[in-house]
Amino acid sequence: MLRIAITGAAGRMGKTLIEACQQAEGCTVSAAIERPGISLIGADAGELAGVGALNVKLVDDVASVVNDFDTLIDFTSIESTLNNLEICKNNNKQIIIGTTGFSDEQKQIIKDASEQSAVVFAPNMSVGVTLCLKLLQTAASILNDDYDIEIVEAHHRHKVDAPSGTALRMGEVIADTLGRDLNECAVYGRQGKTGERKAETIGFETIRAGDIVGDHTVMFATEGERVEITHKASSRMTFAKGAMRAAKWLQTKDKGLFDMQDVLGL
Amino acid sequence: MLRIAITGAAGRMGKTLIEACQQAEGCTVSAAIERPGISLIGADAGELAGVGALNVKLVDDVASVVNDFDTLIDFTSIESTLNNLEICKNNNKQIIIGTTGFSDEQKQIIKDASEQSAVVFAPNMSVGVTLCLKLLQTAASILNDDYDIEIVEAHHRHKVDAPSGTALRMGEVIADTLGRDLNECAVYGRQGKTGERKAETIGFETIRAGDIVGDHTVMFATEGERVEITHKASSRMTFAKGAMRAAKWLQTKDKGLFDMQDVLGL
Amino acid sequence: MLRIAITGAAGRMGKTLIEACQQAEGCTVSAAIERPGISLIGADAGELAGVGALNVKLVDDVASVVNDFDTLIDFTSIESTLNNLEICKNNNKQIIIGTTGFSDEQKQIIKDASEQSAVVFAPNMSVGVTLCLKLLQTAASILNDDYDIEIVEAHHRHKVDAPSGTALRMGEVIADTLGRDLNECAVYGRQGKTGERKAETIGFETIRAGDIVGDHTVMFATEGERVEITHKASSRMTFAKGAMRAAKWLQTKDKGLFDMQDVLGL
Amino acid sequence: MLRIAITGAAGRMGKTLIEACQQAEGCTVSAAIERPGISLIGADAGELAGVGALNVKLVDDVASVVNDFDTLIDFTSIESTLNNLEICKNNNKQIIIGTTGFSDEQKQIIKDASEQSAVVFAPNMSVGVTLCLKLLQTAASILNDDYDIEIVEAHHRHKVDAPSGTALRMGEVIADTLGRDLNECAVYGRQGKTGERKAETIGFETIRAGDIVGDHTVMFATEGERVEITHKASSRMTFAKGAMRAAKWLQTKDKGLFDMQDVLGL
Repeated sequence: MLRIAITGAAGRMGKTLIEACQQAEGCTVSAAIERPGISLIGADAGELAGVGALNVKLVDDVASVVNDFDTLIDFTSIESTLNNLEICKNNNKQIIIGTTGFSDEQKQIIKDASEQSAVVFAPNMSVGVTLCLKLLQTAASILNDDYDIEIVEAHHRHKVDAPSGTALRMGEVIADTLGRDLNECAVYGRQGKTGERKAETIGFETIRAGDIVGDHTVMFATEGERVEITHKASSRMTFAKGAMRAAKWLQTKDKGLFDMQDVLGL
Repeated sequence: MLRIAITGAAGRMGKTLIEACQQAEGCTVSAAIERPGISLIGADAGELAGVGALNVKLVDDVASVVNDFDTLIDFTSIESTLNNLEICKNNNKQIIIGTTGFSDEQKQIIKDASEQSAVVFAPNMSVGVTLCLKLLQTAASILNDDYDIEIVEAHHRHKVDAPSGTALRMGEVIADTLGRDLNECAVYGRQGKTGERKAETIGFETIRAGDIVGDHTVMFATEGERVEITHKASSRMTFAKGAMRAAKWLQTKDKGLFDMQDVLGL
Repeated sequence: MLRIAITGAAGRMGKTLIEACQQAEGCTVSAAIERPGISLIGADAGELAGVGALNVKLVDDVASVVNDFDTLIDFTSIESTLNNLEICKNNNKQIIIGTTGFSDEQKQIIKDASEQSAVVFAPNMSVGVTLCLKLLQTAASILNDDYDIEIVEAHHRHKVDAPSGTALRMGEVIADTLGRDLNECAVYGRQGKTGERKAETIGFETIRAGDIVGDHTVMFATEGERVEITHKASSRMTFAKGAMRAAKWLQTKDKGLFDMQDVLGL
Repeated sequence: MLRIAITGAAGRMGKTLIEACQQAEGCTVSAAIERPGISLIGADAGELAGVGALNVKLVDDVASVVNDFDTLIDFTSIESTLNNLEICKNNNKQIIIGTTGFSDEQKQIIKDASEQSAVVFAPNMSVGVTLCLKLLQTAASILNDDYDIEIVEAHHRHKVDAPSGTALRMGEVIADTLGRDLNECAVYGRQGKTGERKAETIGFETIRAGDIVGDHTVMFATEGERVEITHKASSRMTFAKGAMRAAKWLQTKDKGLFDMQDVLGL
């Protein structure tokens, strides 16, 4: 049984990770950590997550439970993650990092730590998104320049940037495969007398509406047919399940830095 | 049996009209007209359209067959349509006009003719599009400002303007219903730091790819749910069938100017 | 300010109702009730729902807070709802009932109570679904028998019946509008040598997969075009918002039994 | 310049092949053949196809133009194709066969001929469908049994079997990849008290409506996310373009039997 520690365990992502861990075969939540000073310290982690009592009390310090787990899953904040990474490194624990926003210098710290401990570090831990990037690479390499490429993405009304990072990543993978430069071939909107579509462009259409968690469709269209590859996220469970898959895959590794492509064998 | 004349009968739209007419109950192609000087004059109109012989010879002059039909269906050119309208007016024939691009002055000529003959004049004769405009009006009036509105349209790579006229018309109907000004609330593309979506905007996303005949989806989305109204055109048969429906509906009218809303009773 | 009481306030639907109420203009949660015997009695209802403190303590008895609200919103159980209805009737309080599964006899009790108090009683309180039923009626009445009708619905893997009640209701509304009997014209699956599609049938395609909350698409398709009307539920917020809309609409009524069609003016 | 002969050149598929050939870089129609006895023999093949005069007269015998082409593209009938294959074999011409319905014995004749001439033989020459089968294999191998699989296909009202051959082929590829037997795990419709979805099943939903040329969507869904792979055919141009791609790829082969997987390098 793989014993898993979860940080930020009283937050939304933490609760989802607890739920995903209890669903995953061969895994169990053996430690749950939150930042000091909140009133829930001491409560049962399972009850907090709505999955029934687990007899795992929420604690406020990773060091105090370091003998109780094999792998730490961390979707907290940069500072907190780097602290937890240090503890894992010194105690030879595996760590799955889903936190985002690290500087190049901070990424180097993660890389250094991976020389002593096994680390999965992925900005988007979704299995589906990682798979789709691979599918897009295959599709772009087979479908020649005769196919027009359009990337349609939809997110909730509160999202403040466009297109999404995932949509842009999809565009980059396709442009790289086709030998194009996304900066030169991307089109972000169409209005008025546009003229005929230029074959080498990649169009982005950004929908912002309601509570959409995150939909992405890449369309390859030519005369006679269309191929579409779509990913739809419905909840943060998509990341939690990816993290569990990473944790199980990482079990056999002593050290090294891996991403989701490695986890999935792509 | 309603006897129908079709102009431009050797062209793509003309052939589709012949096919639609032969499929429509209670209707028959009784005259087929093309411009003078093409080699097909004298051929059987049904064979030209691929529906089998109809014993209707292609002629080059509406006047020569004016006693052979009740209703003329005309999707040709401005000049040709105005000539044919004059003949219909003087001979008390009904006319369905699907030609587009008339000036205000030319529209007045059509209006004047309708005081003597019954005319259906509609820039988009699709039954489905006309219905969708009505559905959008209902939806917008029921769904309050809490729903975000986005209009996604897709057309083939050769289309030179964006968004499509139909998409803009959809936006106008919605904006009118909600008391907004489309010029002020339309958004035609999103890129970079956009900030949160403004509730009163109407977003347009324009896809240009492959051979798509014409897809339109209007999305109304809020927290908890989405309503979408979609129209997909697959061929010019959508216009031909609308024209047939107009011709049958017009049968009982002596004179007057009508559009597809009238034909469908909306 | 409309003062609203919410029963089952510590459950998932109750928490969503609290969130929706605090978002709705002109409304406030003024009472929150749960069944006796749970440990959360006395806690702040807003904190339970994750919307911040409201200074409304969770109580275990509607009668004890009967002077604190104007309208009760009840999505609990049959027995509980009937008890709460009795209290509302005797105290001239308005009630919104989202509970389902009542017998005809129990529905009569609701009807009787509505002679003294104003009641909205709707098995599906979603504004979008109610609207779609109206749109389907309009579409079916305009699109003649030349359009093939297919109803595609998708729900999560745990749903035990097929098609969904909403899909069947959509089918009934269409069949009624077209003068067909759904029992005779419904098709629930296709396999093998089916022969050509019979024009008068209504096809149902039922997808069961993942965590899909509830998608419904009705397609009207003929040669040349398709019209589709789609509803996608993403969370129980769709019902909570419908309940809030019902509560606000009901404000001006002294008595009477109403459904969501009434609330929306359809 | 690759010189291409097209059989059945006055039929719908033949005309589409002529159009595709003239669009394809490095290819030209150098011979056009129809069965003896039709009135169009002697007409210009380009004018027949609506692409302008090509100075290639329609003939009624492949043998008479055998020195005029490098590659024959044949989408005719079993008997005709086998005759043409014999001529190609004896004259060392390449042949692309899109005809379907061969018996095992007839397939052996094709195999034998490929020992002397290069042959591409594919029941579905669509590049997009061939690609999708590969994408499905990748997706199924990465997404474990935790993902529910549903295959939704839509075709026009005249199709007499269900699900489509392509949908079944997609199901087979997925089942093979996952070590399942499609005969045991396929579900073709759902009605009534179905109980919860069984994880190992593959659902097929078959839509029959209007003039849909052929849409296929395979959905992989789990808690938190969905991946969808979609193919939409819009015209027989999808097959014509695949045939052209096959012809160009085959140029460098002296002999051998190939399918579309070979052509695309999958």
